[in-house]
Amino acid sequence: MQIIELEPIGILHCNLHNRKDTPKSTSESTAQGIIEINPQYLAGLDGINAGSSILVLFWFDRAPRDVLRVHPRGDKDRPMRGVFATHSPMRPNPIAVSKLRVLRRADNCLTVQGLDAMDNTPVLDIKSSR
Amino acid sequence: MQIIELEPIGILHCNLHNRKDTPKSTSESTAQGIIEINPQYLAGLDGINAGSSILVLFWFDRAPRDVLRVHPRGDKDRPMRGVFATHSPMRPNPIAVSKLRVLRRADNCLTVQGLDAMDNTPVLDIKSSR
Repeated sequence: MQIIELEPIGILHCNLHNRKDTPKSTSESTAQGIIEINPQYLAGLDGINAGSSILVLFWFDRAPRDVLRVHPRGDKDRPMRGVFATHSPMRPNPIAVSKLRVLRRADNCLTVQGLDAMDNTPVLDIKSSR
Repeated sequence: MQIIELEPIGILHCNLHNRKDTPKSTSESTAQGIIEINPQYLAGLDGINAGSSILVLFWFDRAPRDVLRVHPRGDKDRPMRGVFATHSPMRPNPIAVSKLRVLRRADNCLTVQGLDAMDNTPVLDIKSSR
């Protein structure tokens, strides 16, 4: 099957350094951080400002890619399910979709709130959140 | 910057063959099609059934990757914006996030409704839709 090559458009800086302390979803997170976009993509940010709601696609580079079934939310009391029926970070292509609020924008840096991703996570894409 | 390599988990089969006839968003689409998942990932589908609501991450392999500003929805009456502030298929890493309804499941094939992607589009990931 074809191989697709991606280059991150930026990287996340925040104070979440391990899985245990990282919220499992944006809806239960108030964690803030800074998304630094590669300056070559600066024009792509036109229209994103403080108050914007955005979908950020992260590449969960530390997640195992060979897991197909998990206990949802890591809770062993819940029966195992296929990863495609969950939001587990573990999956063949570990791309996370996080809805975040932009608190500030300074050139190519977005201060965001609601993080469920760790420091140094690569960013693949940003979209407006409808 | 690092290069990330992905392999699609499956492919979309549908009757949408060109951009003009393809709905611009899932919310304005009733188009149906079949997502065929590579059999090696079958266990990952446990828990997805008729009636499930899923997020499908597509790789828009025919979208230009060198566009950073667009008229939203291709409407020249609307001022240009950065692609990251829109849902344009054109962007450096053209990954689309589509919320779809599963009508039927047969082994590794999901019949889905609400398509905004063309025939033969590679599928990168599936998640439950909260």
